[in-house]
Amino acid sequence: MKVLITGFDPFGGEKINPAWEAVKGIKDIIEGAKIIKLEIPTVFNKSIEKVKEAMELEKPDIVLCIGQAGGRYDMTVERVAINVDDARIEDNEGNQPIDIPVFEDGENAYFSNLPIKAMVEEIKGQGIPSSISNSAGTFVCNHIMYGVLYHINKTYKNMRGGFIHVPFINEQVLDKKNQPYMPVEHITKALEAAIKAAVINNEDIKKSGGAIC
Amino acid sequence: MKVLITGFDPFGGEKINPAWEAVKGIKDIIEGAKIIKLEIPTVFNKSIEKVKEAMELEKPDIVLCIGQAGGRYDMTVERVAINVDDARIEDNEGNQPIDIPVFEDGENAYFSNLPIKAMVEEIKGQGIPSSISNSAGTFVCNHIMYGVLYHINKTYKNMRGGFIHVPFINEQVLDKKNQPYMPVEHITKALEAAIKAAVINNEDIKKSGGAIC
Amino acid sequence: MKVLITGFDPFGGEKINPAWEAVKGIKDIIEGAKIIKLEIPTVFNKSIEKVKEAMELEKPDIVLCIGQAGGRYDMTVERVAINVDDARIEDNEGNQPIDIPVFEDGENAYFSNLPIKAMVEEIKGQGIPSSISNSAGTFVCNHIMYGVLYHINKTYKNMRGGFIHVPFINEQVLDKKNQPYMPVEHITKALEAAIKAAVINNEDIKKSGGAIC
Amino acid sequence: MKVLITGFDPFGGEKINPAWEAVKGIKDIIEGAKIIKLEIPTVFNKSIEKVKEAMELEKPDIVLCIGQAGGRYDMTVERVAINVDDARIEDNEGNQPIDIPVFEDGENAYFSNLPIKAMVEEIKGQGIPSSISNSAGTFVCNHIMYGVLYHINKTYKNMRGGFIHVPFINEQVLDKKNQPYMPVEHITKALEAAIKAAVINNEDIKKSGGAIC
Repeated sequence: MKVLITGFDPFGGEKINPAWEAVKGIKDIIEGAKIIKLEIPTVFNKSIEKVKEAMELEKPDIVLCIGQAGGRYDMTVERVAINVDDARIEDNEGNQPIDIPVFEDGENAYFSNLPIKAMVEEIKGQGIPSSISNSAGTFVCNHIMYGVLYHINKTYKNMRGGFIHVPFINEQVLDKKNQPYMPVEHITKALEAAIKAAVINNEDIKKSGGAIC
Repeated sequence: MKVLITGFDPFGGEKINPAWEAVKGIKDIIEGAKIIKLEIPTVFNKSIEKVKEAMELEKPDIVLCIGQAGGRYDMTVERVAINVDDARIEDNEGNQPIDIPVFEDGENAYFSNLPIKAMVEEIKGQGIPSSISNSAGTFVCNHIMYGVLYHINKTYKNMRGGFIHVPFINEQVLDKKNQPYMPVEHITKALEAAIKAAVINNEDIKKSGGAIC
Repeated sequence: MKVLITGFDPFGGEKINPAWEAVKGIKDIIEGAKIIKLEIPTVFNKSIEKVKEAMELEKPDIVLCIGQAGGRYDMTVERVAINVDDARIEDNEGNQPIDIPVFEDGENAYFSNLPIKAMVEEIKGQGIPSSISNSAGTFVCNHIMYGVLYHINKTYKNMRGGFIHVPFINEQVLDKKNQPYMPVEHITKALEAAIKAAVINNEDIKKSGGAIC
Repeated sequence: MKVLITGFDPFGGEKINPAWEAVKGIKDIIEGAKIIKLEIPTVFNKSIEKVKEAMELEKPDIVLCIGQAGGRYDMTVERVAINVDDARIEDNEGNQPIDIPVFEDGENAYFSNLPIKAMVEEIKGQGIPSSISNSAGTFVCNHIMYGVLYHINKTYKNMRGGFIHVPFINEQVLDKKNQPYMPVEHITKALEAAIKAAVINNEDIKKSGGAIC
């Protein structure tokens, strides 16, 4: 089996992106699956093109994209991506789309077809906080998740795809007051656990992970 | 013009639901539109049936559902409803669906076709904090929003629909530590502003309202 | 009986100070006590001098100072003031003392001799959230509270004094994300309740109001 | 030089106390100073007696007590302890004092005579978030800090003393929603940095560390 895992480059004034920092440290083989790591630009469209190329070239079984969610407390496995770009800040090339669909001919939304609740449980089994998230936002994170699931839906029907948001790491919060962080070692370990769960579970487990709002 | 506005009954151990408390106080006519108020049960399916009946009977131009989002700081106008019920707690009749679609034959998600950003701006124009939300959760609030938009999409194509989440009111947070609240008078005033914006704007305004994640 | 109540002028980039906005609206007579309202500058030392003058002139029975605590959720009645000025930002005249005592010959700290727990209960009795705070910070709010209690301790032994921190009001948080607020009418009503409790209770009530940390 | 460092045992329903977990891992010698570690009970008075005995026996130069502050985001070095016990929950032997002085003949408050700002800077220099706190609460943490400084003030005038609050560790927040944590390795490393700063700095540095409120 083959897993393509991506991490964004830094954006929004940050010097590093914990997503890519953590992805770099992941083992090369997990549960027998080969792990391919790819850094992608925090840029609308270009990020999707770059992942699409790797999907075409590598034919991975699983595509898992990782992004920073500054302010979140735990590893959040995303449930769904929506067909909208609505950028509060500019991406790394100055684009700031407002209320534009990611793909004109895409569904309103795509659900991740990875076993998201099994992934949450496996991460928590490693002693690291994790939960389901029902929104990946409307910036480049939702955009890449939507793009990957769109291409899976249209072209690569045997692949599975999803997205995980990770908190800030400590060096990012030294001068931010009352911001949660997670050490990069915990994020890497959690991502390895998430990959393991995705590799060994074809179907998700039945477990409440909902949010009241 | 006619506006159907609904509010849920209390749930989750609360004695009142600020949604219905605030809806009760709304004026009967706003910008010439007649306002019809309806209390609905915090119960999966039954809530949709009750709103569907009122849509059939009253033939409103706009259907706006209101729900409580304890812990939120401002009036959040929801952008999208997703096709999943995933209940962390039981509803008022003991149902707790986990990862079930709202409607088997529905889209993955429906976007509100109300002018959500104009609604946010009109509320803020009244001096009351408001923002766009990209997730209505996976409990009865997302459920009713999805249900209304499903029926609009399938049957009532001329109607417009959406959902607003409101914070706790003060009497609910007296014994909860560090929980934001909004006075019921502010919520009512904000809902009137939101209705006004929906009545007078056929198209939404172009204004960034996105979330990074 | 006579009550001197003060509110600071705006600081830290804010256009208004909710403390003074709320104080202005307080009734002139509460439980038979005459209420004297005084706006004071957000300036080290000058603020104390101005209150000291009013204490000398008016000979109030109670001195209650009010200040803004942006980010707090409820009406917080302060328990104690400490003998240190440590300013993270400049005051309104550019002073920024670091680790300087308020008064060289003062105690390390003074406890409010108002019935702080009775005040909290009376505010909550009005349906408005309130709690005890164990730190008034180290800026001008702690400074004025310390100064008032210092002068009471040294000179005006029959007076009673204290401090209440109030949250932002809505117009201040319109462009701040996820900040709690309280409407100015609630703050005014809460202050009237606090004054009532101070006027009618010579001794405080025995009720847990502690914080674990 | 000799440093006595204490950590409380678990309380409030927690199975472990991160304070003691982290203290156990500290090196035995830091900057030439011998480190003596002591677990103390989360019990009013008994905790002070136990530390007092160790102060008498070991004659340490520095006494640093460590406690859990669930909900805090960073390592908080406490500035001041106040002369009051006001317990919101029972201690580990069922005591729940309300508004009782720690020592009848003590000052209203004692300031730590450790170089608290140098300690914060040294911790941040290790890449770990830290700040000054102006309240150690009114439970057993403030109690032990007050007790140590009281005994230093009355009897052991050459000793220096202080207190640091530490966040939850990850295993404690797995089933708590949106609670910050710090890995125990970071806490241990931060405590070593704090001890180093206390050992090498006789005087504190001049650096703003204040809080507006």
